[in-house]
Amino acid sequence: MSHNTFGHLFRMTTWGESHGPALGVVIDGCPPGIRLEASDIQADLDRRKPGQSRFVTQRREADEVEILSGVFVDERIEAEYGGPVTTGTPISLLIRNTDQRSKDYSDIRDKFRPGHADFTYDAKYGVRDYRGGGRSSARETAARVAAGAVARKVLDHLLPGGVTIRAALVQMGPHAIDRAYWDWDQRDLNPFFCPDAKAAAFFEDYLDGIRKAGSSVGAILEVVAEGVPAGWGAPIYGKLDQDIASALMSINAVKGVEIGAGFAAAALSGEENADEIYTRQDDGPDFRSNHAGGILGGISSGQPIVARFAVKPTSSILTPRKTIDTAGHATEILTKGRHDPCVGIRAVPVAEAMLAVVLADHALRHRGQTGK
Amino acid sequence: MSHNTFGHLFRMTTWGESHGPALGVVIDGCPPGIRLEASDIQADLDRRKPGQSRFVTQRREADEVEILSGVFVDERIEAEYGGPVTTGTPISLLIRNTDQRSKDYSDIRDKFRPGHADFTYDAKYGVRDYRGGGRSSARETAARVAAGAVARKVLDHLLPGGVTIRAALVQMGPHAIDRAYWDWDQRDLNPFFCPDAKAAAFFEDYLDGIRKAGSSVGAILEVVAEGVPAGWGAPIYGKLDQDIASALMSINAVKGVEIGAGFAAAALSGEENADEIYTRQDDGPDFRSNHAGGILGGISSGQPIVARFAVKPTSSILTPRKTIDTAGHATEILTKGRHDPCVGIRAVPVAEAMLAVVLADHALRHRGQTGK
Amino acid sequence: MSHNTFGHLFRMTTWGESHGPALGVVIDGCPPGIRLEASDIQADLDRRKPGQSRFVTQRREADEVEILSGVFVDERIEAEYGGPVTTGTPISLLIRNTDQRSKDYSDIRDKFRPGHADFTYDAKYGVRDYRGGGRSSARETAARVAAGAVARKVLDHLLPGGVTIRAALVQMGPHAIDRAYWDWDQRDLNPFFCPDAKAAAFFEDYLDGIRKAGSSVGAILEVVAEGVPAGWGAPIYGKLDQDIASALMSINAVKGVEIGAGFAAAALSGEENADEIYTRQDDGPDFRSNHAGGILGGISSGQPIVARFAVKPTSSILTPRKTIDTAGHATEILTKGRHDPCVGIRAVPVAEAMLAVVLADHALRHRGQTGK
Amino acid sequence: MSHNTFGHLFRMTTWGESHGPALGVVIDGCPPGIRLEASDIQADLDRRKPGQSRFVTQRREADEVEILSGVFVDERIEAEYGGPVTTGTPISLLIRNTDQRSKDYSDIRDKFRPGHADFTYDAKYGVRDYRGGGRSSARETAARVAAGAVARKVLDHLLPGGVTIRAALVQMGPHAIDRAYWDWDQRDLNPFFCPDAKAAAFFEDYLDGIRKAGSSVGAILEVVAEGVPAGWGAPIYGKLDQDIASALMSINAVKGVEIGAGFAAAALSGEENADEIYTRQDDGPDFRSNHAGGILGGISSGQPIVARFAVKPTSSILTPRKTIDTAGHATEILTKGRHDPCVGIRAVPVAEAMLAVVLADHALRHRGQTGK
Repeated sequence: MSHNTFGHLFRMTTWGESHGPALGVVIDGCPPGIRLEASDIQADLDRRKPGQSRFVTQRREADEVEILSGVFVDERIEAEYGGPVTTGTPISLLIRNTDQRSKDYSDIRDKFRPGHADFTYDAKYGVRDYRGGGRSSARETAARVAAGAVARKVLDHLLPGGVTIRAALVQMGPHAIDRAYWDWDQRDLNPFFCPDAKAAAFFEDYLDGIRKAGSSVGAILEVVAEGVPAGWGAPIYGKLDQDIASALMSINAVKGVEIGAGFAAAALSGEENADEIYTRQDDGPDFRSNHAGGILGGISSGQPIVARFAVKPTSSILTPRKTIDTAGHATEILTKGRHDPCVGIRAVPVAEAMLAVVLADHALRHRGQTGK
Repeated sequence: MSHNTFGHLFRMTTWGESHGPALGVVIDGCPPGIRLEASDIQADLDRRKPGQSRFVTQRREADEVEILSGVFVDERIEAEYGGPVTTGTPISLLIRNTDQRSKDYSDIRDKFRPGHADFTYDAKYGVRDYRGGGRSSARETAARVAAGAVARKVLDHLLPGGVTIRAALVQMGPHAIDRAYWDWDQRDLNPFFCPDAKAAAFFEDYLDGIRKAGSSVGAILEVVAEGVPAGWGAPIYGKLDQDIASALMSINAVKGVEIGAGFAAAALSGEENADEIYTRQDDGPDFRSNHAGGILGGISSGQPIVARFAVKPTSSILTPRKTIDTAGHATEILTKGRHDPCVGIRAVPVAEAMLAVVLADHALRHRGQTGK
Repeated sequence: MSHNTFGHLFRMTTWGESHGPALGVVIDGCPPGIRLEASDIQADLDRRKPGQSRFVTQRREADEVEILSGVFVDERIEAEYGGPVTTGTPISLLIRNTDQRSKDYSDIRDKFRPGHADFTYDAKYGVRDYRGGGRSSARETAARVAAGAVARKVLDHLLPGGVTIRAALVQMGPHAIDRAYWDWDQRDLNPFFCPDAKAAAFFEDYLDGIRKAGSSVGAILEVVAEGVPAGWGAPIYGKLDQDIASALMSINAVKGVEIGAGFAAAALSGEENADEIYTRQDDGPDFRSNHAGGILGGISSGQPIVARFAVKPTSSILTPRKTIDTAGHATEILTKGRHDPCVGIRAVPVAEAMLAVVLADHALRHRGQTGK
Repeated sequence: MSHNTFGHLFRMTTWGESHGPALGVVIDGCPPGIRLEASDIQADLDRRKPGQSRFVTQRREADEVEILSGVFVDERIEAEYGGPVTTGTPISLLIRNTDQRSKDYSDIRDKFRPGHADFTYDAKYGVRDYRGGGRSSARETAARVAAGAVARKVLDHLLPGGVTIRAALVQMGPHAIDRAYWDWDQRDLNPFFCPDAKAAAFFEDYLDGIRKAGSSVGAILEVVAEGVPAGWGAPIYGKLDQDIASALMSINAVKGVEIGAGFAAAALSGEENADEIYTRQDDGPDFRSNHAGGILGGISSGQPIVARFAVKPTSSILTPRKTIDTAGHATEILTKGRHDPCVGIRAVPVAEAMLAVVLADHALRHRGQTGK
């Protein structure tokens, strides 16, 4: 979890800038013998990629992934596994940037956009690649999604069909969905990854208005992992909820993370909050509520793991804003270019990817320490 | 950030159980030549220690810290520095447990307390030290506070008088303080670390009621670091806000963390949320709002760093609760013993400590990479 | 492997100075359910401890170890396991220093002893605890030996009775033992851990001469692990031989490490060096030679792992040596005090401990990645 | 230092197989503002690349490096720095494989080559990319050399013109060079990186004989860093010599590493071995000998850092060797294909690269902790 590497046994190192030739990720520590080819990863990338509706940036990127290492196939492996498999060595994934518009960047070169990392990168590094935000661009999340697809494969290898990870948009601007109408199937039928069809219909008009006004709006997302067995996580500073918080907070524009009841837990009494345990016919405990969000003492309880996080509104808006230039003088800036009116939408596949990476890492760590 | 170690260049490794002979922390990577003696650490420990009011656990622990390594003094150092200084080698701090009541633990040995880590530790490890919660006890946070005191010393060494880290309780149960009455001086005049005197007066009655009912209640805390220069933090997976989220979420009973505007940012427009920048006479940017909480793109902006986090109500309550025993049979449990009616209160010095540790680590990492 | 922490999944963090109140180690990541009590560790410590013959330092240290955390026993565990077991949480081990002579340290305070770390610690840190060498003292290796005892327990837990780790002194000064007379049983019958009884007899006179002359002499040691299964190690920068080299080179006074044929391999032809493989009745390959030292491509082959390392002569000698003082002026120094005429002797249990730590770590990492 | 990542603050993660589409390295933690373009890296790669004489493998690889991220230039940076500079974000370097011969690999697919990693990779991972040795191929060292070129740039940025890192071949088979004739200028005038012109002339005939016989031979190399200031290194498990040993032992085919006097130190007396210190006119200590190899207590002393390491003879030889096949049956193998008769030769630039990486990492770590 330092610099550009995330994870301990299942580790990803991402690299690349928004307008450089390419971006990518190196995944280290993947178990061997897992079927993997580019198409497994492409499906997830396609869910994140820009330009899929009028509600996301119109930048056109194929986001085609190349696997450069770490998988192998010959006729014998083909016969046994049905295609290429991981070899246990680093998996290098490459995604070319293809739609970097050649344009005049002097505006963002000379001025710090409010709400962006322009000023802080400049303060830290002195030099920065300002084109499209450089390394601070949300484009980096493509690499996470690619790694997440591999992480899902790892989970499926360890627990075939066992773990399901899904995220959804549960609030746009001040408008929360009605959880009574939650339907995962609906989620993929609208451009917002919204599980409440009625809310999704409302968001269409709502976001059109925001978009046409050249403004932007925030969102709240929820990500859920079902089927995680009890026992994953590592106290005290490798807690599962801690690593989930770390993973989600590392996503661009995220300003808050909560697990289970989250901030609302503060207002509950001990009686209300502690999830009582009942017996079940099969085995294992039967928790009748999940205020804990599936994690107690930093270790999974076997209940669904539930996290929510807040994404701030895109800072790139068409209204001129007060700022200073690199020489420290007062000026104004107006961010033109292709941007997301609600950047939270595309964070849905990114959140799933990050949760998958955290879980794959903890699954291997748990197996390492306990053999389970 | 793995298992029981936190940090990268300034690293702490904590150990110890609630009812073992002692607990402690080893701090590695501390710069040399910093004045440090036990009394520097004791002051912070005293703020966290139990038994200081009727609103916290009545366990009596002196929480006296011993420095076992990593500092040195002789007459020459005494003359130059005025006392013992750090040598750059690991600082081992030890705190003896003295008030472990000898009692019958069979109840928590055989039954899983709802809302506790009993079940998950059992699922992970098979064996567990159930006395007082063992490793999952909030008693471990004494070690964090000790390390945090050293971290503050490091920050003061790097930026003399520069960085101020303070936390406060801003909500108890459903009752938020009135931020208009925020007064840091008031914070230390009540047993709740509450900066709003009027709210503190209300909390006294309120928490007495909770306490007498054998119940418990949650809280929200805010922790602020002023004076952090622009440039600390390391994209993409060593973001300052990410590491703060990780640090705060690792504290016992924490269920949510937010930075700056946090979850409320979701409801804002891009115009409202992005903090405009003005010029100042001295130098540096003049941000007129701080929705970002002092961090942009994972790097500090020079504004105050502001984080909030939610602490769930103590699960140890006097009301019997449904649960199962270790054999899987239905039963009930009632947690007797000395507990905090609002465990959030004592999280105040812990939050300060964790933020200090994160900042000391990032200060050294930033200096390592950039020389600044 | 950074600063004062060694290992990845099985991690040890050591602390303490030669003349401070105590030294110790925190072991993190140990599997749960392993029988462990102080006496298991004490046996190894007793082999390393000073004052056991006239050939080692006459400092008198009981080197009694206390386990402060990470193990637990109650009547039920007692009945099932026969005593305390590890819980999977950090194991903190403490060893008090008891024989720090109060004396005048002004000589080593003011002058840099040639061949010691005095000058380099001063150059790095500015302040240093010079009493007995402070952190750079070989006394730190007691903590390694304690951790090594736990590591052996881990290996025995994973592969009951499977792995045997033994070291021996194979050269003292210019005098190599005769490998034809190698007898492990002899090793523990002389004060040199020498497996060749005849050489041991010679060393007795030889080292007496060195000792009486106030001089010192180097040594070469060999450490062997038998029973390590094929498959441990992790290319490219977590190679098993790399981590063994790192572990052994980190021991005080070690100047060289080799695996298998080692430096002699340079003079071999490819035909001679590559160990041919034959079949065996049971299963697995039958290597008829072991130039590889049990490691190929950084991964164990199932053959015995064989490493050798060179220990320089103690720099603390009774002959006056030219040096400079802390002000940079020319002077002389003569190191009085209790020292080892051949510090390599006591490195024998340290080497076993370090190899055990490396193997325990790799065993867990291998299990984490592959499930084997 | 785990899996495929090396370093702590200056970190490299390498990936790629011998016969995959490409290999590469991601460098994280590089300071910003350092002039860097592909040609800076290419020069070092060209020294390592195959096919440069009849004494190395005849595989033809251009080894052209592409910089995919982490550097930036615009007209302003061009004017200030003269070309692209590092931005402080990850530097991704890519080298395409171009000369993977399409051929029948069934021999090495089915049989384990003695002295190779074939058997151990199979034991660990179950599946392996056997083409050209896959991940265990020395081709991976191209990525190290590329990273090493960046590391040199970092050192030069920190200490302009200060640190010189050079390696040389000092023994081939049983034939050591005559150190009296050491001339660094000669080193680059022969295909062996040999600083003794006379020995180089001898090696030409000698290695021709080995090559024509289809045999191979080992070598000893020495790598020296001059100009390293006193103070780099971090006790106890981040010792500079420990990390150098780790770095060199991680190079393919290396079986031993020594620092300064190394194994010969075992035969010395304390009087002979400890380097006396004299005063100098300028400042700093004047060591008149360097048995320590520039490192005391794991920290640099300001003297030249001197390490030597042994490279075993290539296991790929034209003589048939006994082995077993993957089914465990006895068979023979004869390794055809393009191989190095003395693989040690091409390890020269690799050793320089690894030492540069270790030093760059420690320079940044030292600056982080001490500000120096």
